[in-house]
Amino acid sequence: MADELPPMSLKAIGVVRSEAKEISTGGDWWQELVSEIVIDSSLTEALEGLEQYSHIIVLYWMHLSPADKVPLKVWPRGRRDLPMRGLFASRSPHRPNRIGKATVRLLERRENILRVKGLDALDSSPVLDIKPYIPGYDSVDDARAP
Amino acid sequence: MADELPPMSLKAIGVVRSEAKEISTGGDWWQELVSEIVIDSSLTEALEGLEQYSHIIVLYWMHLSPADKVPLKVWPRGRRDLPMRGLFASRSPHRPNRIGKATVRLLERRENILRVKGLDALDSSPVLDIKPYIPGYDSVDDARAP
Repeated sequence: MADELPPMSLKAIGVVRSEAKEISTGGDWWQELVSEIVIDSSLTEALEGLEQYSHIIVLYWMHLSPADKVPLKVWPRGRRDLPMRGLFASRSPHRPNRIGKATVRLLERRENILRVKGLDALDSSPVLDIKPYIPGYDSVDDARAP
Repeated sequence: MADELPPMSLKAIGVVRSEAKEISTGGDWWQELVSEIVIDSSLTEALEGLEQYSHIIVLYWMHLSPADKVPLKVWPRGRRDLPMRGLFASRSPHRPNRIGKATVRLLERRENILRVKGLDALDSSPVLDIKPYIPGYDSVDDARAP
């Protein structure tokens, strides 16, 4: 399937600066965590107006996830007392494409530096994209999850 | 900044089959659109349990966006009567990394085929990741947007 497609390669637009240095299996350790996203200074102008949004979507590269083996089934949140489920029915970081997606509160923008709360990306994670969080487009009122 | 980082390359896990064949500047043409996501059959097992979720997040490659020039400022939703704003304060498809993120309703899963509603990806877009939409993690109750 991939043969018919154009090559897809990524470049970092910035990097995460966080106190989270290694993978944690704990619960929601990231919820109150304040991190910085340092965007390449050549892109500062592309951040103009972002501060009008209270929340942003961060796409980042989960650079510490093992690249070599991607499981088809995983234990939900690492809990072995639950039945395994498909990788794509989970948020496990062990994915064919190691793209993490986080919705975080934007506390402040200082030029090319974004101070955010609730980012579950580890320190030094390459940042791939910043998108404004748009209620209604990014949110669902009646979503169902098991 | 990119020099210190490991190479990041993507592989398609599937492809979008949609009636949307070319870029539209119209409004919310995609809201009622039903599309299919065909995941590589070697990954069918990784989809198990996804049908327990009403909505999923689709990361895809915006393969028809021009790769050569990425603007720093754009007109919001193409409207030239509004002031320009930074690219990262918009959802313009012309991004340094052409990753689209859509939250869609999962109507049905048949083996490796997902039938979804509300996907704004064009036909033949490479699919990069499927994640379950988790209320509370992916949604924000008090988000503010201009």
